[in-house]
Amino acid sequence: MSLADIHSIDLTDTPVVTIDLDIMERNIRRFQELCDEAEVGLRPHIKTHKIPALTKAQLDAGAIGIACQKLGEVEVMQAAGAHDIMLTYNIVGAAKLERLLKLARVCDLKTVCDNLTVAEGLSAAFAGSGVTLGVLVECDTGAGRNGVQSPAQAAELAKRIDQLPGLRFAGLMTYPITESTADYLTEAYKELDARGLKAEIVSTGGTPTLSLLRSVPGVTEHRAGTYIFNDRMCVKAGVATWDDCAMRVKATVVSRPTQGRAVIDAGSKTLSSDLLSMEGHGHIVEYPTAKIAKLNEEHGVVLFEEGAPAPQVGEVVTIIPNHTCVVTNLHDQLVGVRGGKVETVWDVAARGLVR
Amino acid sequence: MSLADIHSIDLTDTPVVTIDLDIMERNIRRFQELCDEAEVGLRPHIKTHKIPALTKAQLDAGAIGIACQKLGEVEVMQAAGAHDIMLTYNIVGAAKLERLLKLARVCDLKTVCDNLTVAEGLSAAFAGSGVTLGVLVECDTGAGRNGVQSPAQAAELAKRIDQLPGLRFAGLMTYPITESTADYLTEAYKELDARGLKAEIVSTGGTPTLSLLRSVPGVTEHRAGTYIFNDRMCVKAGVATWDDCAMRVKATVVSRPTQGRAVIDAGSKTLSSDLLSMEGHGHIVEYPTAKIAKLNEEHGVVLFEEGAPAPQVGEVVTIIPNHTCVVTNLHDQLVGVRGGKVETVWDVAARGLVR
Repeated sequence: MSLADIHSIDLTDTPVVTIDLDIMERNIRRFQELCDEAEVGLRPHIKTHKIPALTKAQLDAGAIGIACQKLGEVEVMQAAGAHDIMLTYNIVGAAKLERLLKLARVCDLKTVCDNLTVAEGLSAAFAGSGVTLGVLVECDTGAGRNGVQSPAQAAELAKRIDQLPGLRFAGLMTYPITESTADYLTEAYKELDARGLKAEIVSTGGTPTLSLLRSVPGVTEHRAGTYIFNDRMCVKAGVATWDDCAMRVKATVVSRPTQGRAVIDAGSKTLSSDLLSMEGHGHIVEYPTAKIAKLNEEHGVVLFEEGAPAPQVGEVVTIIPNHTCVVTNLHDQLVGVRGGKVETVWDVAARGLVR
Repeated sequence: MSLADIHSIDLTDTPVVTIDLDIMERNIRRFQELCDEAEVGLRPHIKTHKIPALTKAQLDAGAIGIACQKLGEVEVMQAAGAHDIMLTYNIVGAAKLERLLKLARVCDLKTVCDNLTVAEGLSAAFAGSGVTLGVLVECDTGAGRNGVQSPAQAAELAKRIDQLPGLRFAGLMTYPITESTADYLTEAYKELDARGLKAEIVSTGGTPTLSLLRSVPGVTEHRAGTYIFNDRMCVKAGVATWDDCAMRVKATVVSRPTQGRAVIDAGSKTLSSDLLSMEGHGHIVEYPTAKIAKLNEEHGVVLFEEGAPAPQVGEVVTIIPNHTCVVTNLHDQLVGVRGGKVETVWDVAARGLVR
């Protein structure tokens, strides 16, 4: 896109997802400083932005490497120059294992697993390839998603990984940090030690849980995504203020059917329907007490308390979404603004890569 | 994509969104027959599929035209040959009005409005252009989204539209059909008549509410999207069986952390987080009592009752999603299968067009 095209972007032609560059740059700097102070490497999770230029900005600021959730994301970011990449997902199936091996030949790729079936699949793909794949054991330290259920199971799986041809036990990985994480990992270190193993990498994750990092012994790196933009979830969790939220979705009021109701042109196709246990679908900067009560695909229904100020049809409002990562995935482009002026436009290069 | 490429698509490389062509073709035929029997034109809403080839299939089966929710969708479908198009959205702002006028010059385009600000914007764009835009009044007959609030307001707005240069009052539009729709519209016809106006088009909408069509007098056409694929919402509403659901998302079990929990590689990036007032995020065909309890972006957490059969890591399962339209919007391609074999692949040409 030419500079003239970029400067002609009309921010009143909504919905449009803007990123405030001053805020974003400050977020990158601050989070890096927090990790530096904690003497823990920062491994940004690129799922939040899916944009090579922002990966570069994070690496330039001092990140040790990146995390990806999908092979397609690794492919995009490796092609754009990222080298130290952790794929934090159980990889299953012939087609994906072939892509994984291809990537592991050209970058410093690590992956995770939480069961022997996945480990054996990885081994079958890498044995005899000339590449040894570093594999971390994913630990369920309280989140109830993926992960081995106990420190002893973690150490047992680590041992099996270390014995499988083509693989190398590379450490422990968990997401997010919970009240149980410190105890779980401390016990896991002992169980590993009893088997003559050591976790070279101990990788924790989550933007809101960075503050818990110092309570967990032995962590070598932290994975976080949302911090680059921040969102309503981060504000609710107390780790950001509205002024720290770089992603701002511009939407237009298209209808005012009643005194207390407005309809905006940002629905679930723009904001996603992720609630993350919150009430409402986002924060309207200009009308902070208004509630985005309901989303259809192209309609956002906003409710106003009686007597509260409310916008007229045609007014453009600014929304801080509940969850930045899912908003990014819905849009082909994000628009970078500084001082309210368009400075750049990024293609969301790794958008929609579900495989 | 070449035929060889299409036939080599691996349905075990998941997640992948498949459309059963036999079921889809039957759905198109049956819904058309229901509208024919009710002597009401069928205007398929293309937001469900966003694919020109499926628009053509619906028109070939007897549809009178199509409905779109976004200008971008109109642009894609007009370029692909659709002619009679209703844009069921309040259009606001200079950039969009320019595109609307351009489209109205090359196809039979109608739009809607529910307030005078929008009507005056449309008029300013069309006055003196040589094109008269047909505008329907959107009526809120109980849904609590867009729409004028009373039959008298509807008729008043119709009168203003009819007086504005460049515009023509084209009828009444509402979504969906509720218990109040018949009374509202009946009263609106009287209010229009008292002002010397007549609703040339009366357009209702919604797949689940087709059965209510006969209860509403004066309807000339019905807009429906979901019927082409059907989904869990349609089954819950009693208007489809599982065997009528053409969209089936293939996902792989990547983890079995506990006896009662499996994790599949289809999360909110694949299925969306739309609940539509239901419990759970989809129906697993092979494990009908399992519950997709939670979605993160790339993880679906599935819970099984104690003792119930559960899949192993590596097993591919088939999910009927809660809401087809939002699933389509998350994917670049849908894969058409017949008898379990890949027959075609469609690019979702109008995906992600939020403006």
